[in-house]
Amino acid sequence: MKNENQSLEEEEDWGMKTWKNLEKVREISPLIQCITNYVSMDLMANTLLASGASPAMLHCLQEIPDFTPHADALCLNVGTLSPDWLPSMKSAAELVNELGKPWVFDPVAVSASEFRLKTCIELVGLKPAVIRGNASEILALANASRDTHSSKGADSSHGSMDAIEAAKSLAKASGAVIAVSGAVDIITDGQRLVGVHNGVAMMQRITATGCAVTALIAAFVAVDPLHAFEATVSALSIFGVAGELGMDMAKGPASLRMHLIDSLHGLDQATILSQVNISCMSRAS
Amino acid sequence: MKNENQSLEEEEDWGMKTWKNLEKVREISPLIQCITNYVSMDLMANTLLASGASPAMLHCLQEIPDFTPHADALCLNVGTLSPDWLPSMKSAAELVNELGKPWVFDPVAVSASEFRLKTCIELVGLKPAVIRGNASEILALANASRDTHSSKGADSSHGSMDAIEAAKSLAKASGAVIAVSGAVDIITDGQRLVGVHNGVAMMQRITATGCAVTALIAAFVAVDPLHAFEATVSALSIFGVAGELGMDMAKGPASLRMHLIDSLHGLDQATILSQVNISCMSRAS
Amino acid sequence: MKNENQSLEEEEDWGMKTWKNLEKVREISPLIQCITNYVSMDLMANTLLASGASPAMLHCLQEIPDFTPHADALCLNVGTLSPDWLPSMKSAAELVNELGKPWVFDPVAVSASEFRLKTCIELVGLKPAVIRGNASEILALANASRDTHSSKGADSSHGSMDAIEAAKSLAKASGAVIAVSGAVDIITDGQRLVGVHNGVAMMQRITATGCAVTALIAAFVAVDPLHAFEATVSALSIFGVAGELGMDMAKGPASLRMHLIDSLHGLDQATILSQVNISCMSRAS
Repeated sequence: MKNENQSLEEEEDWGMKTWKNLEKVREISPLIQCITNYVSMDLMANTLLASGASPAMLHCLQEIPDFTPHADALCLNVGTLSPDWLPSMKSAAELVNELGKPWVFDPVAVSASEFRLKTCIELVGLKPAVIRGNASEILALANASRDTHSSKGADSSHGSMDAIEAAKSLAKASGAVIAVSGAVDIITDGQRLVGVHNGVAMMQRITATGCAVTALIAAFVAVDPLHAFEATVSALSIFGVAGELGMDMAKGPASLRMHLIDSLHGLDQATILSQVNISCMSRAS
Repeated sequence: MKNENQSLEEEEDWGMKTWKNLEKVREISPLIQCITNYVSMDLMANTLLASGASPAMLHCLQEIPDFTPHADALCLNVGTLSPDWLPSMKSAAELVNELGKPWVFDPVAVSASEFRLKTCIELVGLKPAVIRGNASEILALANASRDTHSSKGADSSHGSMDAIEAAKSLAKASGAVIAVSGAVDIITDGQRLVGVHNGVAMMQRITATGCAVTALIAAFVAVDPLHAFEATVSALSIFGVAGELGMDMAKGPASLRMHLIDSLHGLDQATILSQVNISCMSRAS
Repeated sequence: MKNENQSLEEEEDWGMKTWKNLEKVREISPLIQCITNYVSMDLMANTLLASGASPAMLHCLQEIPDFTPHADALCLNVGTLSPDWLPSMKSAAELVNELGKPWVFDPVAVSASEFRLKTCIELVGLKPAVIRGNASEILALANASRDTHSSKGADSSHGSMDAIEAAKSLAKASGAVIAVSGAVDIITDGQRLVGVHNGVAMMQRITATGCAVTALIAAFVAVDPLHAFEATVSALSIFGVAGELGMDMAKGPASLRMHLIDSLHGLDQATILSQVNISCMSRAS
């Protein structure tokens, strides 16, 4: 049970945490290796650059032993999955695990096929620090992790209450922070649960915004790997705030995309402190 | 023979048909599987999203039996062709045929090589509902379909009268609706012939606009597969109108790209009824 | 030793040369085959289109014997290198060499791995007309070309004086014009040395601007292959001027990207003559 003052205090806390995390990304400029789908590469790289991070789209198996140790975090995304990219994904995830660096997973359209579901379950087994998806993706992954005989996950969207329980269960089963994107983004580590109320609906009409925010999470986790939960919350809120600022200038999804990236690049402390909208939900469950 | 009133009536018809088709795309949000070239993926996905459709860039052979049955239409594009993507293209086309769903083909640069020409002829044999290309591409494909000993197609652009005859002949030979992009887009099913007078020249200075409109055709055909001819005409006109609206705000090709997508997203009935410019050409031949 | 008048004269010369080169690109519209990384394809194609050139992203080994002879120049880029694309890169480079046409090389992140370094050295051996990279890339390539036992190149940026000597040595060893991108772009053929002072810092916060300017160099060299040095200088200056004009309208990296391409498309003689900022540096060494 909390009173209004505590609630206010917590929210101010998140604003300042979020700003400090962004400052750290800008200062350290973490190198983020992305093995991702073809559609997202441009927006993902530009999102990372606009945040101050340094992107590297490198997927070649032969290069991983030499290159991956230089990366501060890894981002894996199965959007345009094919079997020939899998060994690189696994090898890179295993290597960052050995090196004690974090990696972040985006199980795009996990229920598109049995092959993809199986692949995603294997990747979850390689201990990502964070998994981000929409409600349907997290539900499918949580169900599959619970029950290997489960049928193909639904494509339709689901209520957020279902997703909350699934996210908690997946967090406990996988050891990862789980982020469920939606009108309100839900983030849980199995114990704590917060909601990020930033962002605008039109962001869903731009391809690869989900992929891009997963890469942004990787950048935030890279600069504070011991606080993956807070880093994930911060990254989702920052991206949402950039979307809100962008929406003020946008006339449609393409100009929103441009203004979002511009806004991400230009974010200052005052804007973040006033716009970040994060609520603690753990006591509600 | 027609008088002025009939002509006027027909044009009003096309405006309303086009609007109703767009409304249907927005309402149904058809899932369009795209196996396409790397250059076009971003613009193609954003074009589909801006129209109300749902894009899925999925090219993995193992996933096709599970995923493709969920798609409402398929879009194949050989822009960055390589042999390892071909089995997926063929398998997906065969599967949608079995399921009675339409697929749309973009024979990008069909005369770039013997390998590409041979591939395109094979794909035409898999019964696309629509084939869209520029005049040179349609001429090369029509010549090759007529004469397997024909030499490499010309790269230069051709007069539209040549393309009209080639398009009709290709339509009859393939059973597909043929769309020839140009200053005036020509659409024929072998019998009917219409011209779409929308669009602006600068759209050709943006990469992948041709690819994107082919995907848009797939979305329109998906929601009305029994009227592939009308759906194709509508999609080409809609994209052209979006380009015209975009051009009013653009300062060059990059801002035109942005405003085109924004305009596509925001199109309303009044704009479509006043801007759609489609003429019946069949009686002229 | 030169006096002020000579210097002024030379600078006016470069402005007019640059304008005439751009005019030639617009007039001839050279066909530029690009075998490049996935991230850069969209921006590279749109940069070429905005300059008046004609891009072709074609990487299929089977198509090279038929298609590459039609290209006026070739652009190779190892950004998302994988072994399966290498035979095409080598085959295309060898073919344009046989045909007496130029090719341009972008050794992106050459020191990312031993595999990439070895690949880049092999490609340099296939006689590119121009090599463009940042200071770290040119240093790593020059060191590796000098000493096959050298260790992995450094990722950090280096002083331009180091890069100048490395660039000269690499130019002499390879026979290529070397361009080093930076706050001042350095171009040398081993004898001559000029600096291009155009461009803005924010261009580095847009992914693939380096890749895009390498493709633009290919277009400029394509229309004047006997003057690869001057063509390279012109292309770098043109791209920088477009960035400066874009920056006047930009609010961040995403709008800069848009305005840069718009500006490149719209460049006129007066703007080029007044904005091109090229200095002869050879007498300083």
